Amino acid sequence: MTTTLVPGNTLITASPEEGRQLAIKMARLVIKATQPDDNVRNELRDVYAHDARALIDVGHVVAIEFATIAAANNYWRG
Amino acid sequence: MTTTLVPGNTLITASPEEGRQLAIKMARLVIKATQPDDNVRNELRDVYAHDARALIDVGHVVAIEFATIAAANNYWRG
Amino acid sequence: MTTTLVPGNTLITASPEEGRQLAIKMARLVIKATQPDDNVRNELRDVYAHDARALIDVGHVVAIEFATIAAANNYWRG
Amino acid sequence: MTTTLVPGNTLITASPEEGRQLAIKMARLVIKATQPDDNVRNELRDVYAHDARALIDVGHVVAIEFATIAAANNYWRG
Amino acid sequence: MTTTLVPGNTLITASPEEGRQLAIKMARLVIKATQPDDNVRNELRDVYAHDARALIDVGHVVAIEFATIAAANNYWRG
Amino acid sequence: MTTTLVPGNTLITASPEEGRQLAIKMARLVIKATQPDDNVRNELRDVYAHDARALIDVGHVVAIEFATIAAANNYWRG
Repeated sequence: MTTTLVPGNTLITASPEEGRQLAIKMARLVIKATQPDDNVRNELRDVYAHDARALIDVGHVVAIEFATIAAANNYWRG
Repeated sequence: MTTTLVPGNTLITASPEEGRQLAIKMARLVIKATQPDDNVRNELRDVYAHDARALIDVGHVVAIEFATIAAANNYWRG
Repeated sequence: MTTTLVPGNTLITASPEEGRQLAIKMARLVIKATQPDDNVRNELRDVYAHDARALIDVGHVVAIEFATIAAANNYWRG
Repeated sequence: MTTTLVPGNTLITASPEEGRQLAIKMARLVIKATQPDDNVRNELRDVYAHDARALIDVGHVVAIEFATIAAANNYWRG
Repeated sequence: MTTTLVPGNTLITASPEEGRQLAIKMARLVIKATQPDDNVRNELRDVYAHDARALIDVGHVVAIEFATIAAANNYWRG
Repeated sequence: MTTTLVPGNTLITASPEEGRQLAIKMARLVIKATQPDDNVRNELRDVYAHDARALIDVGHVVAIEFATIAAANNYWRG
């Protein structure tokens, strides 16, 4: 497995916005590790970007990744 | 990625009602980041707004986003 | 968005039973905010009330909403 | 809404086994509140009891209800 | 309901490995309580063991059960 | 059940990256314990690696496993 799974190898981010970006990246990188072929992933991306329920599922996974990242950052309470 | 993902860049809100509104917005913004084409999103919105299970899925994602926001706000216990 | 999303604007309830009622209401109000047309919602309700998997999905969302409400109330440990 | 949603109106149980039974009951009572017609529910029950993925979904909901009940009981650590 | 739902009536295990085994057993026992007929369950097992998405769903439920068991055991931090 | 479910029998890892790798492995090992036939799993793997929604489901399960591992490691806050 050579795909980097956690960019920067940390869950700590400067802000909720960056935490959300990390959540999206982490969700995508698991897909990449599972299906490493760029062409196949691009084709599938075109499928789910036009499928209402698949898009909602993407949002679901990002929500779960974000919950972990938010907890790691003590919710950026400052 | 130019879509803002967390409006105001904070999870802190004044009340549960505003926290719930933020949860809905955050869920939608991930969809927007994944499918940036407004026309496609509007068409898909029309699909899921008339599909019982898709609507329940939307509620599911909002529930997860809200769990994170509620924890961030110590459940607005006051 | 004019739908009230959290009745009473608080997650605090007197008992688990009332917390559960709030979870059901909050789950429904997100659906209402997403599909504000009462007629469409009534039709869809008739669909999912006769679909085993959709009913289980409803239970799923309520379970997640309730988890948040229960944490907010310290599980009504008294 | 006249269906009791939380039998005994408490999440506290004497043991994990009883907590698990409560999780199953609470999951079922939400279904009952959503579809109060006993005949319809019995027919649907026959459907999902013979559908592999629906049965797994039932297990999913019970797992989430149980997570809340287990936290409420401090995991019965004794 | 005569199916035992939590073997040993405790969430405490000696190790993560045993915790994971308990998660799998608990997930299966809810299915058994919902569909007590061994023959039907065996047929359905043959179905989901050859269905990619059903197998992933099984993994999903086990992940949730394990989250609860891991928290109960303070993650076996020692 | 002879499949090892938690490699190394610990949830503690040196970094988020390794925690993520463990999450992927743990998710796969539950599938293996449920469907021990290597040939069947390989065929199913080919199915879900070309199915957008199945891939998203895989990401979903990994996200949940990772949430547990991240909590076990206090989010590698250092």
